[in-house]
Amino acid sequence: MSGDGPVPVRVDVEATDGAARAGIAHTGRGSFPVPAFMPVGTRGSVRALGADDLDRLAPPVVLANTYHLMLRPGAEVVRDLGGLRGFTGWDGLSLTDSGGFQVFSLEPDLDEDGVSFRSTYDGDLHRLTPEGAAAVQSDLGADMQMVLDICPALPAPERTVREATERTARWAARGRAAFLDGAEARAERGLAQSQLGIVQGGVDPALRADSARRTVEVGFDGYAVGGLSVGETREQMLPALAAAVEHLPADRPRYLMGVGDPASIVEAVALGIDMFDCVLPSRLARHGTILTDEGRLNLRNARHTRDPGPLDPACPCPVCARWSRGYLRHLLLVGELTASRLLTLHNVAWLLRLVDRTAEAVRDRRLDAWRTDVLAVWG
Amino acid sequence: MSGDGPVPVRVDVEATDGAARAGIAHTGRGSFPVPAFMPVGTRGSVRALGADDLDRLAPPVVLANTYHLMLRPGAEVVRDLGGLRGFTGWDGLSLTDSGGFQVFSLEPDLDEDGVSFRSTYDGDLHRLTPEGAAAVQSDLGADMQMVLDICPALPAPERTVREATERTARWAARGRAAFLDGAEARAERGLAQSQLGIVQGGVDPALRADSARRTVEVGFDGYAVGGLSVGETREQMLPALAAAVEHLPADRPRYLMGVGDPASIVEAVALGIDMFDCVLPSRLARHGTILTDEGRLNLRNARHTRDPGPLDPACPCPVCARWSRGYLRHLLLVGELTASRLLTLHNVAWLLRLVDRTAEAVRDRRLDAWRTDVLAVWG
Ligand SMILES: [Zn+2]
Ligand SMILES: [Zn+2]
Repeated sequence: MSGDGPVPVRVDVEATDGAARAGIAHTGRGSFPVPAFMPVGTRGSVRALGADDLDRLAPPVVLANTYHLMLRPGAEVVRDLGGLRGFTGWDGLSLTDSGGFQVFSLEPDLDEDGVSFRSTYDGDLHRLTPEGAAAVQSDLGADMQMVLDICPALPAPERTVREATERTARWAARGRAAFLDGAEARAERGLAQSQLGIVQGGVDPALRADSARRTVEVGFDGYAVGGLSVGETREQMLPALAAAVEHLPADRPRYLMGVGDPASIVEAVALGIDMFDCVLPSRLARHGTILTDEGRLNLRNARHTRDPGPLDPACPCPVCARWSRGYLRHLLLVGELTASRLLTLHNVAWLLRLVDRTAEAVRDRRLDAWRTDVLAVWG
Repeated sequence: MSGDGPVPVRVDVEATDGAARAGIAHTGRGSFPVPAFMPVGTRGSVRALGADDLDRLAPPVVLANTYHLMLRPGAEVVRDLGGLRGFTGWDGLSLTDSGGFQVFSLEPDLDEDGVSFRSTYDGDLHRLTPEGAAAVQSDLGADMQMVLDICPALPAPERTVREATERTARWAARGRAAFLDGAEARAERGLAQSQLGIVQGGVDPALRADSARRTVEVGFDGYAVGGLSVGETREQMLPALAAAVEHLPADRPRYLMGVGDPASIVEAVALGIDMFDCVLPSRLARHGTILTDEGRLNLRNARHTRDPGPLDPACPCPVCARWSRGYLRHLLLVGELTASRLLTLHNVAWLLRLVDRTAEAVRDRRLDAWRTDVLAVWG
């Protein structure tokens, strides 16, 4: 496998229903079906799960957080232990974010060159630049890496959003150049990594369209839409998303970053989005909130004390096949670590299946009806 | 299967080496090889592990704590959810302790009839009697239950130990009678449960011998030695243990309660003990102390940061097959829940294998050499 040049993530669109699409995305190391949900493996592990659990869930891609891994254990340590694949023991596909999202939540010092921030682990000062983010992510060695962008919290003044979008475009060019410069070094390590660009622009459709055009002009191996679902309503989000998608090439993946609630997923797929990631299913699980076809279920509720039934009777996951609500509620209430694991397994399995069912609906050209069903429960 | 009468746990001794024995123990529902180590499933889960993990570890028996389960979720809830087997989703064999060990650590009010204590969960007042302990454990529905005994902390004045031993004998008769009275009710639930008696007597061999004789006189389905490894040295423990074992029937299991350090295991097997339980491997795992053939390993040590090797190169467990010390150390240091699970899996697998290797040494009549090897590392 050659790593000497760009490694496009090519999407074979096999079916469409309106703007929605279903197909296969091909990376430098393997393929995955789209639409796809990516569970978040924050620190090299999807919280509470082991790679053996991932074998059973078979997620299309797992996302890892550059911010956390660059600080602990350090990107070079991950590289020396075989990159994310060798490090985590999971052989499936992976993607790293740029670290920007976490860094910008820390009120960092931002200048044209990059961003300085203090580690949440020990308070030490660190710096991230478009070039540094590319290098760190090459060390981490996921199948896909993300360019460093600037994501202002919404709502924000128009000028703030516009300036962040302009700088994102300048950083995109620098990040891409740095990534391409690293091709040889990656090839030597047998790494066929792709890099995805990120569209910004807040909730202004015109700014989103402009950002999309400029990102495509730089030329990435795939594209993401960032800076959405950060405080705005779904009604504000969707027009901005539509405006961005319109300008993205059809043969590359379109990844809506940080979004994973069921309603947004079906709405975004309807607009042509292919990939999602979200910590929501894991975080809800750890708090005892269960995703089911009937909506959210609060497992702490006393009415589940003697319930011999599964979390979701419609769910084919290994947790629903084996354990009762009564037992899982008990583990949750007494604080057993196993509760976090088993509830996470179910929630992630449920969301993966929701996206699979959404893909099926696209293939059967009945996405509208499916979207109505999902929104009736989750809208 | 009949539950109308006592269900002896019969031991087929297949090999001996001195006083040590190896063979098969038969319960009312299935058999297990002895010597056997039983991991502790405190609240209906071996901490950090799921029943799916137990499938892979295949422990001969899992112990559950009556104290915890009677308070949370309550023995009737466990019964209504199918007993321990249905509740936990683990189909293997199980044993419940009487709850006495936890209760006596709470400085309870003890009288001839029973013992009153405050719940560590909510401070509510509860009472345990020999009859109540038998009834609660019938509800929990393990394959083996333990009679309620009195376990003074050592060192204790001779008179205290003697009085506790006398009362233990009186409680044994009451607990056995109550258990036998419950036979019909258990049979109706399809439960072929056995009850094990407990020898007390501190570190005084004469008192231990007397307690063993009196316990056998009551007549249980199997026998345990309790109240050891509670503060005394191994040199004090072993003569007391030997004195007890001498008076126990050869065709019934002999269970040394709460002991699970490698040195004590080989010493006790050499004296004729068949069963062990201990929270040690799980507790050590959660703190990053790893059991290996070379001794304890502190995974927090910085020298493991980039170590691509397994926890123990000699260990065939699924954790050692897949993950590096470097990765597991990282998970441990950043507090990922998965660290507790994976390290527990290894430590329990390692201890199960230590007992299996001890059984093999008995079968090969080379226990002396094996004991020397184990004591050289763990003595
Ligand atoms: Zn499920
Ligand atoms: Zn191991």
